[in-house]
Amino acid sequence: MEPISFARGIPAPECLPVEELADCARAVIERDGRTVLSYGSAGGYAPLREWIAERHGVEPARILLTNGSLQGFVFLAQHFAGAKVLVERPTYDRPLKILRGLGVDVVALPMDEEGLDPDALDRELRSGPSPAFLYTIPTFQNPTGRTLSLDRRRRVVELAHDHDLLVLEDDPYGLVRFEGESQPTLFELAGGDHVVYSSSFSKTVAPGVRVGYFVLPNELERELEALAVSTYITPALIGQATVHEFLRRGSFEPNLERVRNLLRIRRDAMLDALERDLGDEAKWNRPEGGYFLWLELPDETDTRELLGRAEAAGVTFVPGADFGGAPASARLAYSFVAPEEVGEGVRRLAALVEQPVAA
Amino acid sequence: MEPISFARGIPAPECLPVEELADCARAVIERDGRTVLSYGSAGGYAPLREWIAERHGVEPARILLTNGSLQGFVFLAQHFAGAKVLVERPTYDRPLKILRGLGVDVVALPMDEEGLDPDALDRELRSGPSPAFLYTIPTFQNPTGRTLSLDRRRRVVELAHDHDLLVLEDDPYGLVRFEGESQPTLFELAGGDHVVYSSSFSKTVAPGVRVGYFVLPNELERELEALAVSTYITPALIGQATVHEFLRRGSFEPNLERVRNLLRIRRDAMLDALERDLGDEAKWNRPEGGYFLWLELPDETDTRELLGRAEAAGVTFVPGADFGGAPASARLAYSFVAPEEVGEGVRRLAALVEQPVAA
Repeated sequence: MEPISFARGIPAPECLPVEELADCARAVIERDGRTVLSYGSAGGYAPLREWIAERHGVEPARILLTNGSLQGFVFLAQHFAGAKVLVERPTYDRPLKILRGLGVDVVALPMDEEGLDPDALDRELRSGPSPAFLYTIPTFQNPTGRTLSLDRRRRVVELAHDHDLLVLEDDPYGLVRFEGESQPTLFELAGGDHVVYSSSFSKTVAPGVRVGYFVLPNELERELEALAVSTYITPALIGQATVHEFLRRGSFEPNLERVRNLLRIRRDAMLDALERDLGDEAKWNRPEGGYFLWLELPDETDTRELLGRAEAAGVTFVPGADFGGAPASARLAYSFVAPEEVGEGVRRLAALVEQPVAA
Repeated sequence: MEPISFARGIPAPECLPVEELADCARAVIERDGRTVLSYGSAGGYAPLREWIAERHGVEPARILLTNGSLQGFVFLAQHFAGAKVLVERPTYDRPLKILRGLGVDVVALPMDEEGLDPDALDRELRSGPSPAFLYTIPTFQNPTGRTLSLDRRRRVVELAHDHDLLVLEDDPYGLVRFEGESQPTLFELAGGDHVVYSSSFSKTVAPGVRVGYFVLPNELERELEALAVSTYITPALIGQATVHEFLRRGSFEPNLERVRNLLRIRRDAMLDALERDLGDEAKWNRPEGGYFLWLELPDETDTRELLGRAEAAGVTFVPGADFGGAPASARLAYSFVAPEEVGEGVRRLAALVEQPVAA
């Protein structure tokens, strides 16, 4: 039996604009090969830095392009190694692992349906020693799919200002909204003050281009760029230049619209199947974008235990505890699986939830 | 006045096979886009791992592809953080910086015209605590351009065997030999035992593809691949796939022949100019490949001081002390500059060497 993956937080193959990226790569290497194929700035491909800078209303020197945004997070974490960092509970597991590996004191703040709890943030800022930064994914969060409400966004930005707190806003999913009203980013609300903004082209163009970016204060950009030089001399420019060519041709918005539709169809299939098969047993949210939703099973459930049985039954997910969440929670990714397989995957999962554990 | 750079250890623009790499990128993305444009193995693009594995007579699982070989060196250094590491004096400055940043105890061993001194290695291995590894660039070394003699290669391999010493053989330049007989690698002489082999396609195809690779024992490969996952999830596959397409088409050898010729012309121009303008004042070697030669000026010279005046006079180089070398030494790269400018660059440099420093 082919396993159905609600574990893989990656785009479905049909999301990837293969033909067009192939031509963009060819075109930009032909046009600018002596730049793209040699060593260059550790900050990344200049035309793409300029495009991103304009989009965010800053100088290009404040943009750092990295081999995927996780690599940039590593540089930031290295810069603040040994300090205290605030995160959401639950949160994306890879940054957690990086922080812990660098001896960072990680303090997890509670969140609910509206995202990070600003009262808890306020209490932490008043009580504990000053953190190096707050790491937050305010829109379509990984793993929960939750989005910070506008009121809370304003509160977080105020708190950052009042307590001189640096906020790292990780926003890879914000543009893949397929429903509802866009929220302003923390970066926008703060006028760029106290907020480092991070995103990538993994969800809007393709993960394989490996283009993450950070909008940083000038001095921090220089410091992280020095770490980049010492790590890989120059990031992979071919992917960056290919993305720039894709943008230059005006392909970004139409592709984004296409990707949003593909994701909405998948989310809808998952919501329908959950309602049909787990409506009595479980709770979940209805994200208006992104890749994930957050499933909460009856309290006595241990989703790590459930996963073993699920894999045997041909369906996978990631237990919530892997992200610091409750034992009964799970991250379901609807991004990867074909819409016609979603129902079968949920059916397999539901059959296990309802079935008592073998003694 | 346009500065003439003997500092930049990068290929001349005409070394880059721009048109063909543009077409390789297009072709491989079209053919294998769903792999190349998505997340994938942290170890790198499977067909390229297979090609390299076959070349070195090992299993593909022992090959780790990284975003340039320096990134792989970072993983290896992280793995051995806090240990003792042996290096050559002088040696490539970037690894030195990485090792020191990780709290490694760096012990520099002397070398001469024939490369690393195996007697010094022997003494160190008998006296000090066991090092985590020896870092060596045996062929056309950066910065000296020196090549370890065959006898010494055998000695180093014997010592590695006798003392259970891990040797990291960094060999980015070995294939860009334009004269003389190829030497067996330490990896070959050791039958793969006790030697980690590292190279890249930066000098044979293009630096901008950012494809470094390591041939590792199985367990070490798995450990470094885990570090790669935690750092960037997946390396930049487009460059790796483009290189594989270039290899698959049979373009590698003809391109290498072309690049060797371009480099030989530059080396010859530099040797001629040095003989003409610095024959009485300085010593240098005659590398049979690679990018660099090692200039030794009269003992009283301080090439860091000289560099300031050289920059003002329109010529640059890297002082030997930057690599742990003597104050009177300098690395001259002939790889980048146009052959017709080499003479003028050496003339500018020679004029300063002969001219007493202003009081």
